[in-house]
Amino acid sequence: MAKIRVIQFGLGPIGAGVARVVAARSDFQIVGAVDIDPAKVGHDVGRIIGLERDLGVKVSREAAKTLAKKADVVMHCTSSSLQSVEPQLAQIIRARKNIVSTCEELAMPWGQARIAKRLDALARRYKVTVLGTGINPGFMMDTLPIVLTGVCQRVERVRVERVVDASKRRQPLQAKIGTGLTIEQFRAKAGKEIRHVGLTESVALIARALGWKLDRIEETIAPVIAQSSVKTDYFEVQPGFVTGVEQYGFGIKNGERVVELHLRMCVDAGESVDQIWIEGTPPIHSIIRGVHGDLSTAAVAVNSIQRVVAAPPGLVTMMDIPVISVGE
Amino acid sequence: MAKIRVIQFGLGPIGAGVARVVAARSDFQIVGAVDIDPAKVGHDVGRIIGLERDLGVKVSREAAKTLAKKADVVMHCTSSSLQSVEPQLAQIIRARKNIVSTCEELAMPWGQARIAKRLDALARRYKVTVLGTGINPGFMMDTLPIVLTGVCQRVERVRVERVVDASKRRQPLQAKIGTGLTIEQFRAKAGKEIRHVGLTESVALIARALGWKLDRIEETIAPVIAQSSVKTDYFEVQPGFVTGVEQYGFGIKNGERVVELHLRMCVDAGESVDQIWIEGTPPIHSIIRGVHGDLSTAAVAVNSIQRVVAAPPGLVTMMDIPVISVGE
Repeated sequence: MAKIRVIQFGLGPIGAGVARVVAARSDFQIVGAVDIDPAKVGHDVGRIIGLERDLGVKVSREAAKTLAKKADVVMHCTSSSLQSVEPQLAQIIRARKNIVSTCEELAMPWGQARIAKRLDALARRYKVTVLGTGINPGFMMDTLPIVLTGVCQRVERVRVERVVDASKRRQPLQAKIGTGLTIEQFRAKAGKEIRHVGLTESVALIARALGWKLDRIEETIAPVIAQSSVKTDYFEVQPGFVTGVEQYGFGIKNGERVVELHLRMCVDAGESVDQIWIEGTPPIHSIIRGVHGDLSTAAVAVNSIQRVVAAPPGLVTMMDIPVISVGE
Repeated sequence: MAKIRVIQFGLGPIGAGVARVVAARSDFQIVGAVDIDPAKVGHDVGRIIGLERDLGVKVSREAAKTLAKKADVVMHCTSSSLQSVEPQLAQIIRARKNIVSTCEELAMPWGQARIAKRLDALARRYKVTVLGTGINPGFMMDTLPIVLTGVCQRVERVRVERVVDASKRRQPLQAKIGTGLTIEQFRAKAGKEIRHVGLTESVALIARALGWKLDRIEETIAPVIAQSSVKTDYFEVQPGFVTGVEQYGFGIKNGERVVELHLRMCVDAGESVDQIWIEGTPPIHSIIRGVHGDLSTAAVAVNSIQRVVAAPPGLVTMMDIPVISVGE
C-alpha cells in the first residue's frame, strides 16, 4: 500500500513529538516540514526532532512552497487559539490537504461558530477533512467519557478528574503551570499565561454527544499551594508558594452541574491518574493509569491520521469519525 | 425531529431488555415486534417486556408481515450463532431495514467469511447497514481496549480481564454457567451448552483494528470450583462442585500471545470488575466498575441505533462507525 504522505506544520515540543511518531511508522512518510524558528530552518527534520538520522527533508520557513508538495495530511501544531490559527488552517485547506491539528480550541470549534462555519465551508469546498485532537482536549476528558456512556441506558451526570504529576516533566511545562510563583504572581497570570486550554471544549463535546442543551459553561482556575517544601530538577518550592494549577470546567443545565471536569496539574500531585464517573444506569467508575501528556498527545494525533484521510470533507470532531486505535 | 421507527425481533431476556430501553427513549418508537413464543404472540409488547402500560403494538409470529411495516431499524435478538441467524438477517435486509443485532458471532463476522460476504453484499444491494454488538462481545473486551490503544504510540500486547459476579443474576444465567454441576457434568457440557460466545470475535476485532495478522486464535474453557460452600437464591454449591466458568481467548502472532482475554463468570467471583492492560508506549492500565451484563448489553445495542441508521450500507463492526454514546 502506498504510504500516507505527511507534512509537519510547526516543530515546537508538541510538533516534534508528533513528527517523531510519524517518522517511526512504516505506513507514513514525512515529505515536508514548516517552522519559523531560524535555529530550525534549513536543517534536516530528523535532526530537529531528535532522531539520530536524516529524513531527507529540510525544515522550511516557506509554508506556501511546502504545502504545494503532494501530501495527504498536514499535522498542524502551532497554537492553542483557534482565532490565531485560522489563517494557517485556511492556507492548508486551500492547498487541498487534510489536517490533524493539536490546536486545543479546534477540538470542539463550534463554540466559536463564525470561525468554525468558515473553516467547515472552506474544507468542504476544497474536499478535505479538518480535525482538532490530542490527549486533552480530544481524548481523556471528552472522547473516553463519551465512549463509556455507551454502556449506560441513562446518564444524569459526567464527572472527570485528571491529576497530572508535573514533577518529572520538562522545565517549560513546570514554569507554565506556575511552579514557584507567589499566590499574587499566579493570580496576575492566571487565565492568561497560566491556563490549560480545553476544558470548555471538552464540556461542549460531551454535551453535544449526549444531546444536552447547556445553559452555559463555566471555568475556574486556582493555584495549588505547597503545604511542605517541594523540589524538582528545576524548582524548589517553599510552603505557601505555588506548585501548579487546578482548574474546573462545568457544564450547567437547568441550573445543575451535569458535566464536571477537574484538572489538577502540579509538581506535588503524587501519582498521575485519570478517573471518570458516569452517574446513570448503571453507574460507571473508571480509573486509568499510565497516560502521558506529551507521548499521548502525539499518539492520539498520529492515530487519527487514517480516520481523517478516509473521512468525508468538512470540519469534524472526534465524535464524527470512527474510533481511533494505535497503528502498526 | 421524526422518531426513529424500531421493530423488535426476538423477545427473550435480551430482546425484552433492549425493547425496554427503546420504549424509554423519546426519540424512538416501537412499531412492530416478532417472537415465536405462543405465550407472547398476540399480547401487547409493553406487557411482554414488563412495562405497566400498553405500547399499542402486538407481538406477531409473522416476521414477513411485521417487516413489511415502515421502520428504520430492526433490533435483532435471537441467537449467538451467525450460521443459524443468517436466514433471519437476510429476510430483514430484503425488507430494507437496518439491523442492530446482539448475535455474538455477528460482532466480528469476518472469521466466517462466506456468510459475512453474503450478508455484506445483500446489505449493500438493499442499501441497509448491519451491525452486531453488545457489551461482550461488542464493547468491554474489544471496542474499549481498542479505543484505549489510541493514546499509545506503540502496542505490543493487549490483555483484558472481565470478572462477572453471577451470584445476584437470574436463575437461567446461573444454570447456564454450570453452577452446581460436578466437574464431570461440566466437562460434558463445556463448549456446547456452557460457553460464553464472543472471545474469538473480540480477539479478531482487536487484531483487525491494530493491523495485526494473527497466526491463530485459541479459546480455552474450564470450570471454577467452589473452595468453600456457596449459596445463591437458586443454588447451594458444596466445595468441589462448579460455581461457574472461566474462559480464555488468545490471539497468537509469531508464536506470542499478543491478545489475551480472560473471562471469569461465577457465583463466587467477588466483586464484578473489568480491567484492561495495554502493554506499549506508554503502558496503560484501566479498571472499570459498574458495567452490568444485561443492562449494558441493551444499552450498547440501543445506543448504536443512530450510528447504524446514519452509516453507509454494508455489514459493519463497532470499528467502522463513529463512537457510540448514551442518548437522551
